[in-house]
Amino acid sequence: MTATFRLTTTLIRSSTPILYAAHLSRAYSTARSKRATKSVNTAVWGGAVAVAGIAATFYAAKVGRMPSPVGEIHCDVVSIDRQRRLAGPITAKDSMRLRMEQYIKDLQNRIVAEIENIDGTQFKRDLWQRKEGGDGISCVLQDGNILEKAGVMVSIVYGKLPKAAVLQMRNDRGKDLEVDGPSPFFAAGISIIMHPKNPNAPTVHMNYRYFEVENEDGSPKMAWFGGGADLTPSYLFEEDAVHFHKTLKAVCDKHDKEYYPKFKKWCDDYFHLKHRNETRGVGGIFFDDLDDKSPEEIFAFVRDMGNAFVPSYVPILKRRKDIAFTEEMKQWQQLRRGRYVEFNLIWDRGTKFGLQTPGSRTESILMSLPLTARWEYMYEPKMGGREEKLLEVLRKPREWV
Amino acid sequence: MTATFRLTTTLIRSSTPILYAAHLSRAYSTARSKRATKSVNTAVWGGAVAVAGIAATFYAAKVGRMPSPVGEIHCDVVSIDRQRRLAGPITAKDSMRLRMEQYIKDLQNRIVAEIENIDGTQFKRDLWQRKEGGDGISCVLQDGNILEKAGVMVSIVYGKLPKAAVLQMRNDRGKDLEVDGPSPFFAAGISIIMHPKNPNAPTVHMNYRYFEVENEDGSPKMAWFGGGADLTPSYLFEEDAVHFHKTLKAVCDKHDKEYYPKFKKWCDDYFHLKHRNETRGVGGIFFDDLDDKSPEEIFAFVRDMGNAFVPSYVPILKRRKDIAFTEEMKQWQQLRRGRYVEFNLIWDRGTKFGLQTPGSRTESILMSLPLTARWEYMYEPKMGGREEKLLEVLRKPREWV
Repeated sequence: MTATFRLTTTLIRSSTPILYAAHLSRAYSTARSKRATKSVNTAVWGGAVAVAGIAATFYAAKVGRMPSPVGEIHCDVVSIDRQRRLAGPITAKDSMRLRMEQYIKDLQNRIVAEIENIDGTQFKRDLWQRKEGGDGISCVLQDGNILEKAGVMVSIVYGKLPKAAVLQMRNDRGKDLEVDGPSPFFAAGISIIMHPKNPNAPTVHMNYRYFEVENEDGSPKMAWFGGGADLTPSYLFEEDAVHFHKTLKAVCDKHDKEYYPKFKKWCDDYFHLKHRNETRGVGGIFFDDLDDKSPEEIFAFVRDMGNAFVPSYVPILKRRKDIAFTEEMKQWQQLRRGRYVEFNLIWDRGTKFGLQTPGSRTESILMSLPLTARWEYMYEPKMGGREEKLLEVLRKPREWV
Repeated sequence: MTATFRLTTTLIRSSTPILYAAHLSRAYSTARSKRATKSVNTAVWGGAVAVAGIAATFYAAKVGRMPSPVGEIHCDVVSIDRQRRLAGPITAKDSMRLRMEQYIKDLQNRIVAEIENIDGTQFKRDLWQRKEGGDGISCVLQDGNILEKAGVMVSIVYGKLPKAAVLQMRNDRGKDLEVDGPSPFFAAGISIIMHPKNPNAPTVHMNYRYFEVENEDGSPKMAWFGGGADLTPSYLFEEDAVHFHKTLKAVCDKHDKEYYPKFKKWCDDYFHLKHRNETRGVGGIFFDDLDDKSPEEIFAFVRDMGNAFVPSYVPILKRRKDIAFTEEMKQWQQLRRGRYVEFNLIWDRGTKFGLQTPGSRTESILMSLPLTARWEYMYEPKMGGREEKLLEVLRKPREWV
């Protein structure tokens, strides 16, 4: 526990965040204790990472409706949770808020450690603060040995949900909510994106989030989980798609036999570029508004899914990262990266609403974009080549298991 | 008039366009007659170029409202115009539809010839056909000597505007339209984008369009013009911004002294990346729904603006294209290209609605994207450097003349 902790309070220009990173640095230094000799360059920011995923959770699915500002800090919950944290370790008896936060921060550390180990490069850690309520940790690795760009981001966002937003949530998400005024809310999420350098190695994305609409005393009035994971290769290795899906399916099946087929289809439907008539990649799973079982049961499912990230992706990365490739393959990868940008900026609800949410942190939201991308007018891959083979799968999603 | 004309009917996979390129090839071969010895590789496509600009014209300014399909072919006007074309050259006595079409096709040829002359590379010409009604010519130069990517695109789109779309137009654009059912409409536009290789040379964009809602006999019930031009440097040369604005202002002033100040501000407001709090570049002019004078007067203004493209931009391109630059400058240009992608995919109404319009031509709409772009997490340019100087101007638009 001797981690040197250098807190560089780099403030975002457009806002003046309240400095309140005590509990963050606490959780963080615990996790960092194994590599105690390294100093960490942290920055405290205004705004919210993966407000992306989170905004999508509570600003409904309708295209383009501008979300209302989130409201002032939800003081009761903030102080209740702060006191609780200071009192000692979080246990299974604690609120779902605290347990989800602890889980995703722990998962973040485990994944970062694993990837640093493979890449041989350190992630850059930023601690940030959202003026309107919330904070997060963004871990980013750029231009590494194996990875072109990788982000593992955690965000906690809370405040008051204006009456209009509660109404919208009730209407668009079918939530049976009483709408008698602004409601306290809480959202916590983890987002992962990895773009490897080698065109043989696929991009991966993962996101799990928890959302709560609360009573005035901070107890949950209504709560649900959302998330998913999907794989985006530039070159198709069928065994990779099979491995990825098999790993996710095993976790799903353990909790509910109906989950995998349902969430697999949801993923193909969601990660779809309508203007190209292509899916983003070979899919995975995607779900939202999940509240069909007890929060305890769903939390167990989400934890298992989060824990499956490393076994679902790392073996693929390891077996593809050193395969030789040509300049043409790199160019094709760059064109596919262009499609990734198109999906994220045009269709992804999380990104769209994140960017339209006042106080959101643009750099974190756009962390999902690749380092470089390319657009060639009327590019047509060679018929019958590996590029064409990928397109076939993107145009007609396949069953992998 | 001995142009060899090879019509390669490359059909877009997702649609089966009606082949009807006679008048297009005619107008085209006339224009090509000066370089009669070259054969032209043309492709007939389903979809619409700059459905971008055009969709934005009549699918109102509200973010994210999904446009309805445009309806079936507007047969009367099609056949009236087709007969008229076969009868002889278009004159000032003809309909605005035909005159605008002729003007933008002629302008396209003049600009393409000018740029080919500077770059020393040929544009690739595609003729395409929109199944629902309309056609166009896309001229694209990729990886030239001077230009990384350049497009000069003309599109003609017509059909029946569904009642809901007419209603929406009336409500959102304040058009005094009777809504008694679907209305015939016609839209014609020219779009230009040029991304030079040299980071000292700015990107330029220009678009002019004409929109008509018609009576059943094809006479215009209501008509307006829209368009603009804006300059996007990676490195600021104040004299370039001044030259560009001065040229546009001179044309505006000739027609109406109030145009330039009004359209200059409109441009700064429109080409604004809210999530970055930056304008896209140093601006220019932008206007829409222009019907404050007679169509004849506005058409004269639009023609003068279109004709101003070459004198507004080409002198800048010529004096910047050969300036030496470093690898760092190229990287900064790539990051600025990333911002260009962000604007076009997140905020540009034309692109957004174009991509959501059934039957639109994705490759033409996304022609505006640069060949390559880059996103670095938390990139901060050196304080006091030329990069910082550009950002200052983007954060606080300046008066250039």
